[in-house]
Amino acid sequence: MTQPRTAGAVEEVEIQGHIIDSLLLPKVLDEILTHGGSFNLKDIKIGERQADPSYVRIEVRGPNQQVLEEILDVIHDHGAVPTLAQDCTVVPADMDGAFPDNFYSTTNYRTQIRLSGEWIEVEDQEMDCGILMDSEGAAARCVPMALVRKGDLIVVGRQGLRVFPAETMARQSLFEFMASPVSSEKPKGVTVREIAAAMRRTRANGDKILAVLGPAVVHTGIYGTSLGVSLDRGLPAEEGHEHHLRAINTIRRTGGIRAAVEKGILKSGIMYECVRQQIPYVLAGSIRDDGPLPEVITDVLSAQQRMREQIQGVGLCLMVATALHSIATGNLLPAWVKVACVDINPATVTKLADRGTSQTVGIVTDAEPFLRELVNHLGEVKDDAPSKSI
Amino acid sequence: MTQPRTAGAVEEVEIQGHIIDSLLLPKVLDEILTHGGSFNLKDIKIGERQADPSYVRIEVRGPNQQVLEEILDVIHDHGAVPTLAQDCTVVPADMDGAFPDNFYSTTNYRTQIRLSGEWIEVEDQEMDCGILMDSEGAAARCVPMALVRKGDLIVVGRQGLRVFPAETMARQSLFEFMASPVSSEKPKGVTVREIAAAMRRTRANGDKILAVLGPAVVHTGIYGTSLGVSLDRGLPAEEGHEHHLRAINTIRRTGGIRAAVEKGILKSGIMYECVRQQIPYVLAGSIRDDGPLPEVITDVLSAQQRMREQIQGVGLCLMVATALHSIATGNLLPAWVKVACVDINPATVTKLADRGTSQTVGIVTDAEPFLRELVNHLGEVKDDAPSKSI
Amino acid sequence: MTQPRTAGAVEEVEIQGHIIDSLLLPKVLDEILTHGGSFNLKDIKIGERQADPSYVRIEVRGPNQQVLEEILDVIHDHGAVPTLAQDCTVVPADMDGAFPDNFYSTTNYRTQIRLSGEWIEVEDQEMDCGILMDSEGAAARCVPMALVRKGDLIVVGRQGLRVFPAETMARQSLFEFMASPVSSEKPKGVTVREIAAAMRRTRANGDKILAVLGPAVVHTGIYGTSLGVSLDRGLPAEEGHEHHLRAINTIRRTGGIRAAVEKGILKSGIMYECVRQQIPYVLAGSIRDDGPLPEVITDVLSAQQRMREQIQGVGLCLMVATALHSIATGNLLPAWVKVACVDINPATVTKLADRGTSQTVGIVTDAEPFLRELVNHLGEVKDDAPSKSI
Amino acid sequence: MTQPRTAGAVEEVEIQGHIIDSLLLPKVLDEILTHGGSFNLKDIKIGERQADPSYVRIEVRGPNQQVLEEILDVIHDHGAVPTLAQDCTVVPADMDGAFPDNFYSTTNYRTQIRLSGEWIEVEDQEMDCGILMDSEGAAARCVPMALVRKGDLIVVGRQGLRVFPAETMARQSLFEFMASPVSSEKPKGVTVREIAAAMRRTRANGDKILAVLGPAVVHTGIYGTSLGVSLDRGLPAEEGHEHHLRAINTIRRTGGIRAAVEKGILKSGIMYECVRQQIPYVLAGSIRDDGPLPEVITDVLSAQQRMREQIQGVGLCLMVATALHSIATGNLLPAWVKVACVDINPATVTKLADRGTSQTVGIVTDAEPFLRELVNHLGEVKDDAPSKSI
Repeated sequence: MTQPRTAGAVEEVEIQGHIIDSLLLPKVLDEILTHGGSFNLKDIKIGERQADPSYVRIEVRGPNQQVLEEILDVIHDHGAVPTLAQDCTVVPADMDGAFPDNFYSTTNYRTQIRLSGEWIEVEDQEMDCGILMDSEGAAARCVPMALVRKGDLIVVGRQGLRVFPAETMARQSLFEFMASPVSSEKPKGVTVREIAAAMRRTRANGDKILAVLGPAVVHTGIYGTSLGVSLDRGLPAEEGHEHHLRAINTIRRTGGIRAAVEKGILKSGIMYECVRQQIPYVLAGSIRDDGPLPEVITDVLSAQQRMREQIQGVGLCLMVATALHSIATGNLLPAWVKVACVDINPATVTKLADRGTSQTVGIVTDAEPFLRELVNHLGEVKDDAPSKSI
Repeated sequence: MTQPRTAGAVEEVEIQGHIIDSLLLPKVLDEILTHGGSFNLKDIKIGERQADPSYVRIEVRGPNQQVLEEILDVIHDHGAVPTLAQDCTVVPADMDGAFPDNFYSTTNYRTQIRLSGEWIEVEDQEMDCGILMDSEGAAARCVPMALVRKGDLIVVGRQGLRVFPAETMARQSLFEFMASPVSSEKPKGVTVREIAAAMRRTRANGDKILAVLGPAVVHTGIYGTSLGVSLDRGLPAEEGHEHHLRAINTIRRTGGIRAAVEKGILKSGIMYECVRQQIPYVLAGSIRDDGPLPEVITDVLSAQQRMREQIQGVGLCLMVATALHSIATGNLLPAWVKVACVDINPATVTKLADRGTSQTVGIVTDAEPFLRELVNHLGEVKDDAPSKSI
Repeated sequence: MTQPRTAGAVEEVEIQGHIIDSLLLPKVLDEILTHGGSFNLKDIKIGERQADPSYVRIEVRGPNQQVLEEILDVIHDHGAVPTLAQDCTVVPADMDGAFPDNFYSTTNYRTQIRLSGEWIEVEDQEMDCGILMDSEGAAARCVPMALVRKGDLIVVGRQGLRVFPAETMARQSLFEFMASPVSSEKPKGVTVREIAAAMRRTRANGDKILAVLGPAVVHTGIYGTSLGVSLDRGLPAEEGHEHHLRAINTIRRTGGIRAAVEKGILKSGIMYECVRQQIPYVLAGSIRDDGPLPEVITDVLSAQQRMREQIQGVGLCLMVATALHSIATGNLLPAWVKVACVDINPATVTKLADRGTSQTVGIVTDAEPFLRELVNHLGEVKDDAPSKSI
Repeated sequence: MTQPRTAGAVEEVEIQGHIIDSLLLPKVLDEILTHGGSFNLKDIKIGERQADPSYVRIEVRGPNQQVLEEILDVIHDHGAVPTLAQDCTVVPADMDGAFPDNFYSTTNYRTQIRLSGEWIEVEDQEMDCGILMDSEGAAARCVPMALVRKGDLIVVGRQGLRVFPAETMARQSLFEFMASPVSSEKPKGVTVREIAAAMRRTRANGDKILAVLGPAVVHTGIYGTSLGVSLDRGLPAEEGHEHHLRAINTIRRTGGIRAAVEKGILKSGIMYECVRQQIPYVLAGSIRDDGPLPEVITDVLSAQQRMREQIQGVGLCLMVATALHSIATGNLLPAWVKVACVDINPATVTKLADRGTSQTVGIVTDAEPFLRELVNHLGEVKDDAPSKSI
């Protein structure tokens, strides 16, 4: 008989983990307000010591059901799940190459889905994908839009889904990576030493190191001449572009980089070392490419797919002097892979974080002296050289 | 019996045109010195008035034949040709997808080759290509490396070739484009007005206008909502990325942009206007792409080829807020197409000029107010809307 | 007899206000950990609704007294005060032009000191100053280092002091300023409209608007010719520099800007309008100055002092196209003055926030079209023109 | 009786020197056209070999006398002097602190004035000054506007004046400075080595080296802790600002940097080394300054004057990580002092050249690794340490 005191829609959610340290709780409250909702904190248990997880239960209100749904969508990405847990919903894809309407769009945080009352881990975590459940309903993994096939079981809505940003964002993990936070007043020499140490730890753990390298790296002279191709023409830099075109032509005539190494035409440089040391690499095409080199994958979807294969097992990613490829790789990496991004342009680091690769440690410096000093700290480049390039 | 007074190698070249105005002569002399050669000016006739062409004959010396060849290579791009004219040399390509060794690498300047004593024009002028002679030896055009087929007749060396940078670089052409030189102290309002006027002149001449647009343009709101897709969900900007993914999914489900317009799903925005006004567009894929939209050409070589087709007949190119696509397009345009490049980052303009698109007028400003003011100057966007996007 | 369970030093602090919304609590906890301390949350009361203030009591531990003191120093700036309140301590300055050792270094947040058990407000709030108590011990204000006179009573330590960052940082205040948060995806046109509205509200409140303008503003042509000096020589931009020197010389010969307006030599431009409309302005000297103009204050301390006088009563500050003067002004403004900083270089905005002017709304755009559109939104520039320049 | 064939005004000028190499001739012709004039080349003698000077005589026409005067003004700065040489004109200054109308505004190129038929050298060459003749009419030097005293004899017009840009701009001088031109594709390691070599040559010549250093340099850790003040408080970087204020207060309490070194309070760092090695330094105030340190010259005109004194005898200037002070110093240096400008922001280098310090070699890199590597190349920092800071 009595009307509800407050019009609008309401739902109760909970968050757990390092929600204070990781700034998750304030972010969630902020999102609610920004999207036009309001909240009541129903219960809050903050871990007494910093190692203890915290817990909070929030009543979220929106002026109507549509706004409430939008709020729940947003805060779900910050780990807020409805207190009333249900299984997730899947529907079969009704066509190739597209998700069903209302598909769940993934983050790069660890994610679980609830099936038959059990929470199971989502594999191949990657942002901006859908979640594909296998036909037996026992496993799930991220799948990009273009790879969906008609009939695939795709998760829709956000029921029965939970994400764990807190684990990734807890400050401890950054401390594991770098001994001290990066600051513009900290000598860069210290930062380089810490990255070298993180690289050694990554290898010691049996994880792979991924290097995403822009063309500036080949100009550093660290590994030898430009493009790694020693054509020994001694031309000054102004002729760089024609030199570059003739180098590509020579490699195309030879049948590719590997063939050029085997035939003794390519004798030094980054690509030479990759071939000799059997370090896998991916050369992804761009609309600006000349040539290109035979190993360049000119189809960008195929290149992305090859990059997905190669990031398996990566523990640390070093991005140097390339905004395009850094963002492309950042899009594929789960949030728990440590990323160090080195660029002389501060905007590259900012863009990377803005697009969701928030685990990035950004170092605004010049690629050449950075790499030179990194090589010094890593000691001699031995036969088990640590890099793989994209 | 007598030894030559000067060891080394020597050749005589000549340059004609507006070689003083266009800074060509000083550049040529500078290149000779920089590459380790020396020169004697044998004859110089400078046009008395600025309209008159000039002529200079230079004896070029190098310490040995190899250095001399390098110098001749470099200055050839500035229009310096051997005084002793001979026909050009062609050899058949010995394989698909690569030029013969010693192929002539093109510039974006107007170029002629000498066949049977006659100078004939090279068509489809584009930098970083080779020159393909037709089987009858009566015509020639630029061809990119990847499109070479075994047996194609390709020009080698620089004998019987001449380029005309002077014509392109003469200052008069800039004056035709803009009423006054761009300067950081000139109010931008004036620059916008001049670009609008240049656009009108281009259309009046029957030439096409090419717009190379980065994603920032869709965020300007000039044409409507982000991505031109009016899904009317009213989400604030933070949700931009998920919004964007859902928009792509919807268009994929519909079968593409054209289908979405026809079915009334896409009702406004840049892409809507392109479809409705039958303005051709090219959407080129990138390694960062989500989705992508069905019309995106994911193979970068195919996308370049489609871009080559679309630049035929272009008289003016307006590049806004995209370094990648601006450079990619600049690589394809002949040097006589006027280019205005608008970017908030001065480095974009610099890179474009560094990579050879030296005809670029750079305007360092914010895309949104620039476009808003340009639209004001162009008057109402009529049914014969002037743009075409890549 | 029993040893303390934990070695090290301990102190209890409390914080109140919008400590969740404003991210204050997480920041405080983070500072404790970063500086090598640890914490126990003894009591936490989070406001149930977003309007309610929250309260938290924290036991802070450090490995030794020195580290603890450092931690308490840092978190004091975030509003954390010892639970055991005592009066503040003052000592007389022992020399001119320097604070006593251990002086309290101010923030730009609202601050109170405790005198005879009462909390009194600190006036002239400004960062990086000391606090000067008047001789009767009844009032206090911020004082810069250089202005200290021997015998002045200066607050030392952090006992009996509390700051209120939460009030400034509460998100509501930003919403009062701008109708919606600035985002790179929000059309700039909307942002300009909101700033215009904030300017009108500021004037309606009887507050002053401060404009901090770099030289790029005079090149916009908004108010007329460069430097506001119409010497009508019609020189093209390349001669800008000599033009500029002659203009300064002319004004010096005339006796200054005011005299030049009165004698009809200066007839338009920003400075002309300031004189005519009796808008106070400060021209602060720089090591790069030519001339300078007679009104330029060449002593930087005097210029700072004059700026301090002029910021009294300012409610909104618009900074355009000058990093140096924006940071200089930001150093003087209390945290509750709304600041909009417009610059084509994103680094300017970042630097401003890094140096403590955290209330800044940054708009990365080109000054000229920004101002042009702002003028449109403000309507005609009337006799009661709203700006004052530094 | 006959009307002149061409209306308008005409004058004949001549230029000599390395006018082709140095691009002077094309620049002069370009200026004539840009300003609305036209030219006839009456005589041209181009040096046959690159060591030979060239000579050109040009008839310059303008549509009226005023435009012609403007053209002659502009091209005079490029070394074009009327063929009909006359003595220069001087008038006494009619007031303190300003030049007479029509004063000659200087460049930073070597300049001569003609007195009693003899060409005499102008001393203290500096851009944007006037030329002061001594009372006997036997010597002349540059004088800044603010230092003019009533009765001073100041050169007006451009009659009897000649400048020598060609000598400064000849490419040979750059080759003396750097072994090879700076290019973005040249490894930075090579550039650093060349700058070290130029520093050694400068010292060997008995010339001084001037270092213009921004605050980033003290954060590099090259010389020890921030500000060179070792207060040993071990605070992490976040407290940098308060630390900085306390350091300044301590130095003020001590009576200055020199006193702090003598009393053993300041024990390491850049300022410590300057004091200990008796290297003169200038600390110029800025409107952003806290404190400031006692040695800071807060009046910008006094600081400029002190800088003028210190640049006497400087052969090489190294500018690192400061746009403001680099431009301020560049304004004072004659064009023949070699300048290397190191900044992570490419705009700093561009601005420096735009404002007339065209002799600058710009190196876009990070200050810290640059300095670290430079120190390596220079060997141990000995007692005769080579730098002097502003």
